Amino acid sequence: MAASASTAASAPGATAAVSPQANAAWKDSEVLLATTFGSKDSWATYLRQAGLRVRVHPEDTAGGAADLAAVEFAICWAPQPGLLQQCHNLKAIQSMGAGVDSLMGDGTLPRHVPLLRVIDPLMSERMATWVLWGVINCQRKCDAYLAAQQEGRWDKGIEAFRSIDNGELRVGVMGLGVMGGAVADTLARLGYRVSAWTRRHRKERRPGMTYFHGMQQLQEFAVSTDVLVCLLPLTDETRGIIGSRLLSWLPAGACVINAARGGHLVEADLLAALDSGHIASAVLDVFDPEPLPPSSPLWRHPRVRIFPHVSSMTNIESAVAQMLDNRECVLSGKAPPPELVVDWQAGY
Amino acid sequence: MAASASTAASAPGATAAVSPQANAAWKDSEVLLATTFGSKDSWATYLRQAGLRVRVHPEDTAGGAADLAAVEFAICWAPQPGLLQQCHNLKAIQSMGAGVDSLMGDGTLPRHVPLLRVIDPLMSERMATWVLWGVINCQRKCDAYLAAQQEGRWDKGIEAFRSIDNGELRVGVMGLGVMGGAVADTLARLGYRVSAWTRRHRKERRPGMTYFHGMQQLQEFAVSTDVLVCLLPLTDETRGIIGSRLLSWLPAGACVINAARGGHLVEADLLAALDSGHIASAVLDVFDPEPLPPSSPLWRHPRVRIFPHVSSMTNIESAVAQMLDNRECVLSGKAPPPELVVDWQAGY
Repeated sequence: MAASASTAASAPGATAAVSPQANAAWKDSEVLLATTFGSKDSWATYLRQAGLRVRVHPEDTAGGAADLAAVEFAICWAPQPGLLQQCHNLKAIQSMGAGVDSLMGDGTLPRHVPLLRVIDPLMSERMATWVLWGVINCQRKCDAYLAAQQEGRWDKGIEAFRSIDNGELRVGVMGLGVMGGAVADTLARLGYRVSAWTRRHRKERRPGMTYFHGMQQLQEFAVSTDVLVCLLPLTDETRGIIGSRLLSWLPAGACVINAARGGHLVEADLLAALDSGHIASAVLDVFDPEPLPPSSPLWRHPRVRIFPHVSSMTNIESAVAQMLDNRECVLSGKAPPPELVVDWQAGY
Repeated sequence: MAASASTAASAPGATAAVSPQANAAWKDSEVLLATTFGSKDSWATYLRQAGLRVRVHPEDTAGGAADLAAVEFAICWAPQPGLLQQCHNLKAIQSMGAGVDSLMGDGTLPRHVPLLRVIDPLMSERMATWVLWGVINCQRKCDAYLAAQQEGRWDKGIEAFRSIDNGELRVGVMGLGVMGGAVADTLARLGYRVSAWTRRHRKERRPGMTYFHGMQQLQEFAVSTDVLVCLLPLTDETRGIIGSRLLSWLPAGACVINAARGGHLVEADLLAALDSGHIASAVLDVFDPEPLPPSSPLWRHPRVRIFPHVSSMTNIESAVAQMLDNRECVLSGKAPPPELVVDWQAGY
């Protein structure tokens, strides 16, 4: 029954139909839940509670393409490469997060169906809150106070009556997408001196912020950045962008916060810059690969804080609600909100 | 010469005079810098750069009252008890911070002269920033991630996809003075659910905040507070207010942030509540006594963060500017801004 319903909905012209029958047909089609990253149980529970027929990979897909024939909507984060190619009736791919690099790396990913992201105001608030913690942790030398505490040392001299005030701290945000924009806005509202670097020129301007764009302005951006916050999408252009060159442009004593993707950062270059004393500290939420291997020297570096990719965890409940809306749009022939549709050309 | 100038300025009626002579006289009078807490060097430097004749205790006051005769303005933080009583020509006492409990505890403090505080917008911003760090540190379980890092453990389960969003976290701020008000405003602006408890009913209301006042509403305030932030002035009424009773009213898993005075907190009660598991963690900037003695078990408690009274260090430069204005007001017979004059009756 699921297969026939799916066939009906995928017949030519069916995506534009909004008759009760077509409606009923897509509603009954299957959803594939596929991720090699983290637990699927909560997601499956929420999706089933919402009335969806959920097929989980690999548990329910041992039969390959035959088992995947009824799948019209795939909800994924880092799925097994090649898996989605086997979904012959696929109508859309839904990323489980805002980033889509975990999907776009798969060269066999079907490109004739829309690739959708989740943009949840709660996720950008979570990101802004986490980055804010990282910024203050650097600004107010909280790790140095912790080290003093661990030695039982009452040391008022750590900031030496020279706390850097918000209006003095130059925070440079790389990337002004949904996440970077929320972070920049939050920091600016709290009085920090925010500048932004984007790959391309942006028309939109936030009051009080300084803008830089393109590789030719990266140095100018970096030399006036005390705390660097990376929230870029990961593309061929931005991979490895936080390397020895960019780090050397930052002023001595600068801090680095990476909440984008591990691939943006050249870990060996960061370690060298930390050990030379040029970079004061780093707060990292993302790594390449993840989980961060036990052998990585980052784990034990006294001036590095490691988070296991939790800066902006998806709120499953609100994400599922947005995914249901996306699914309804695609399968009933309406256009999903443009900001949720990935531009294959741009790579994000 | 200094003594005669001081005598002229302190003659009856002189404080009301604004003639060039009287003006010149008070300008030449001495300033006493007296604190048993922290370094005096930066202060003395700034005050002297501003053209003041500075006498530092105890370095320049070995002669007692004779050395102190030319002092008309005393800038103090926890001065040696009885010292100010010896300043027979004193016209005002200027606290080096916003709090004045370090002065009011001295029963011999001259009460016939105004006691002035410093209220610096930079100090309340510093406080708000520090408290914000403490709130997020609790909210996003940053210390638990640090513990995982120290064990080399990649643990995405710490928040288990259930980060508490800003709008879900109930932050209860005790005290709505300059510091508490700035903290409450900053948190509310970031979307936290802020409530406030004050000793007396306050007419001013901030939109979106819940208000409680008086001992009879303390329990109602506490039972709906996930993160308790103390920014009360220390008075007989508020001493020991964070004790076993208040802690037991907080919901299980609550966190405590104290940035007011060590005397507000009963340390043994906090330790018991931490060890029973009822209180999840504490972030403490103030202690009784300070420095926190090496023997205190707080130093080594895994769920306590210790800061050496640095949450809102005075910005010496802007504080000195405000002190100069205060001195000019008092010595030239004008009234200082009322919010800077301590109410002896209220105790703050």
